[in-house]
Amino acid sequence: MKKHNFSAGPCILPEEVLKEASKAVINFNNDNLSLIEISHRSKPFINVMNNAKDLVRELLNVPQDYSILFLQGGASLEFLMVPFNLMKINGNASYLNTGIWSKKAIQEAKGFGKVTISGDSSDKNFNYIPKNYEIPDNMDYFHCTSNNTIYGTQIKNFPNCKTHLVCDMSSDIFSRKIDVRKFALIYAGAQKNMGPAGATLVIVKNEILGKTNRKIPTMLNYQTHITGESMFNTPPVFPIYVSMLTLKWIKKQGGVSVIEKRNIKKAKLLYSEIDRNSLFNGTALIEDRSLMNICFLLNDESKKDMFDKMCEDAGINGIKGHKSVGGYRASVYNAMPIESIKVLVDLMRKLEKN
Amino acid sequence: MKKHNFSAGPCILPEEVLKEASKAVINFNNDNLSLIEISHRSKPFINVMNNAKDLVRELLNVPQDYSILFLQGGASLEFLMVPFNLMKINGNASYLNTGIWSKKAIQEAKGFGKVTISGDSSDKNFNYIPKNYEIPDNMDYFHCTSNNTIYGTQIKNFPNCKTHLVCDMSSDIFSRKIDVRKFALIYAGAQKNMGPAGATLVIVKNEILGKTNRKIPTMLNYQTHITGESMFNTPPVFPIYVSMLTLKWIKKQGGVSVIEKRNIKKAKLLYSEIDRNSLFNGTALIEDRSLMNICFLLNDESKKDMFDKMCEDAGINGIKGHKSVGGYRASVYNAMPIESIKVLVDLMRKLEKN
Repeated sequence: MKKHNFSAGPCILPEEVLKEASKAVINFNNDNLSLIEISHRSKPFINVMNNAKDLVRELLNVPQDYSILFLQGGASLEFLMVPFNLMKINGNASYLNTGIWSKKAIQEAKGFGKVTISGDSSDKNFNYIPKNYEIPDNMDYFHCTSNNTIYGTQIKNFPNCKTHLVCDMSSDIFSRKIDVRKFALIYAGAQKNMGPAGATLVIVKNEILGKTNRKIPTMLNYQTHITGESMFNTPPVFPIYVSMLTLKWIKKQGGVSVIEKRNIKKAKLLYSEIDRNSLFNGTALIEDRSLMNICFLLNDESKKDMFDKMCEDAGINGIKGHKSVGGYRASVYNAMPIESIKVLVDLMRKLEKN
Repeated sequence: MKKHNFSAGPCILPEEVLKEASKAVINFNNDNLSLIEISHRSKPFINVMNNAKDLVRELLNVPQDYSILFLQGGASLEFLMVPFNLMKINGNASYLNTGIWSKKAIQEAKGFGKVTISGDSSDKNFNYIPKNYEIPDNMDYFHCTSNNTIYGTQIKNFPNCKTHLVCDMSSDIFSRKIDVRKFALIYAGAQKNMGPAGATLVIVKNEILGKTNRKIPTMLNYQTHITGESMFNTPPVFPIYVSMLTLKWIKKQGGVSVIEKRNIKKAKLLYSEIDRNSLFNGTALIEDRSLMNICFLLNDESKKDMFDKMCEDAGINGIKGHKSVGGYRASVYNAMPIESIKVLVDLMRKLEKN
C-alpha cells in the first residue's frame, strides 16, 4: 500500500516523477548509461539544466533581467550568501522574524553588518505574520520567509519595498502565483515542491549584484554561478534532474495557477474540518494560515493514542507536529492528492463520532 | 548494449549500486515510500548516514579523533572552507601547484592570507609531480591535490609535514590505501569513486579546528557540521545514499587494498599498451602516472578519425582528452571492469596493425 505522505520535507513528489527518475538511474536518455555516471558537460545533461531553467522562467514568468541558478547548500547557505552579496560594508538590512528559519537567517546576517528587525511574531510562538510594519529607509535589503513550515503560517501579501525584497520561498515556491518583479532575490531549497534535497533554486535580478565592494569568495558569489551558468563546478546532477521532471509535471497540470487553485481547495478541506470538529483546533491565526503546512492540536490528549493508531493503520505518514508547536502538522504540498487529505479528514470525523 | 564508460567524472559506478539506487527512488527500505520523499530525520535515513560514516571509517581506517562529514558544494566550496577554518588572520599557507584544481584552491586561499607555492609543475603543463620541495616553517597548513584528473598525474608519496597536511582527494579517494594519520584534513567531491555529484566527503582531525580566531559563517564552519552530525541542515539525501551503497560495494570487494591491487593491474594493462604501441605516447612522467586517469596521445593525427570511429562502434564513452592536454584520457575508476580496458587495448592493437 502506497502511503499518504504528509511529511514536512523532504516530502511527497509526483509518482510519475519518481518513476522516471528511477528509470534514469539505470538508463538515461536511452543512451545505456545512468544519469549519475555521465559528464555534467555532456549534451544530455546540459539539456536537463537548460530545461530546468526554462521551466522555472516559464512557470513563474521570470523576467529576462533575472538569472535562474541551481546551487547547493540549501537555504542555510543562502542565509550567508545573501548578506555576502547584498549587504554593504557597515551596512544595514531589515528582516522579518517569523520563525526558526527567519531567526537563522537573521543570525547569519549579523555576521556581516547591522540587522534591523522590522516585524516579529515571536511573542505568540510565531502563530501569525506581522503586518503594518515599517521598513526603515536606507536598508540594503529586506528579508522575509514566505512560508513557515513549523508554525503553519504564510505571507499572503508581500510588502511594497523601497529596498530590495529578498525572500526565502523554500516551502511554498511553485505552490501559488507570485509576481517575481516585486522581488530582487528569491531562493528556495528544492526539497518541498521542486525536487529532492541537494539543490537550491535562486532567482536574482542581475542589476542588484556587484554593488557592495565586498570581497566575496568565488563559490559564494552569485555572479560566479551566473557566468558559469550553474556549472561553475559539478552541479548536483540527480537533484537538478528530478527538479526538472517535477517542473515539467507542474506545467502538465496546467501551471502554477492551476496548482494554486488545487492547493486552496485541498487546504480548505482540511481547515474546514479542523474548525468544524469539536476535537481539534488550528494553531495559526486564520488569516495567516499556510496552504502548505496545516498545524492543529487535539483538544483532548486522552484521544491521542487512538488517533495516532488510526492514522498509522490508514497509512498516514509524517503527520506529527514539530516539537515547538506540538500536535499535528499535515504538509499538503503540490504533489499531495486531495484523496489523501480526505482519508485524514474521515479519520478526524470518525474520532469525533467514537 | 551497456557502454564502456571512461568518463572522467561524474563517472562509472558499480551496476549493483545503480540497481539498488534505482529501486530506492520508488520504494526505499520496503516502506512503500521513495528515499527522496522521506524526512532526513527519519530512522531509515539516519541509518543511511551512520552507515556511510561507519563505512568511511572502516575502509580508510580513520582514527577516532577524526570526524567524518558529508557536506555539499563540492571541492570548490572546500577551497574556501579550508582557509576559512585553518588560516590564521594574516596567516600563511603552503600549496603545491599541480594543475587546474590546485590553482583554483590557491586562488581562493589568497583571499584569506598569504600563500606560498612550495612546488609547481606548471612549467611542463603539469605532466609531473614536484618532488624534494621545501615546506617553510610557520605555515598554517600545506595543501596538495592527490590526483590530477586532467593531466593524469598522482602523488605517490605524501610529504612528511611539520604543519597540517590538507589534501584534495576528489579523484582518487578509496582507490588506494592511505594513512589518514598523516593528514589533518582530507576532502573529496563524491562524483568519482564514491557516488553521484552533490555530496562532499570531509575527514578532519578535530583538534585542528577553532584555532584561528576568525569569525566563520555557520555553514562554512566545519565545527557546525561536526556538532550537527552532517545534519545541520537537510543533507543531499540521494547522493549520500548512493555513496553509502558504493562504500558497501567496496567493502564487499574486499576493501581498499583489494581495490588498489585491481587498479594497479588495470592501469598497468593500459600503460603497457601505450608504451608498447608505436602509435601512442603517454603524456605524464612515468613515475607520476595516475592509476585513475590515463592520458595518451596518438602520434599520427591522420589516424584520429579512424580510432574515434572504432571507439564509438565498440561502445567506448568519455575517452576524449581534456582540451588542455589533448589526445585521449581513459578514466579507469574503481567501478571500471578490466574487461572494458581490454576492449580499448584491443582497439589500440587493431589500429596499429591496420
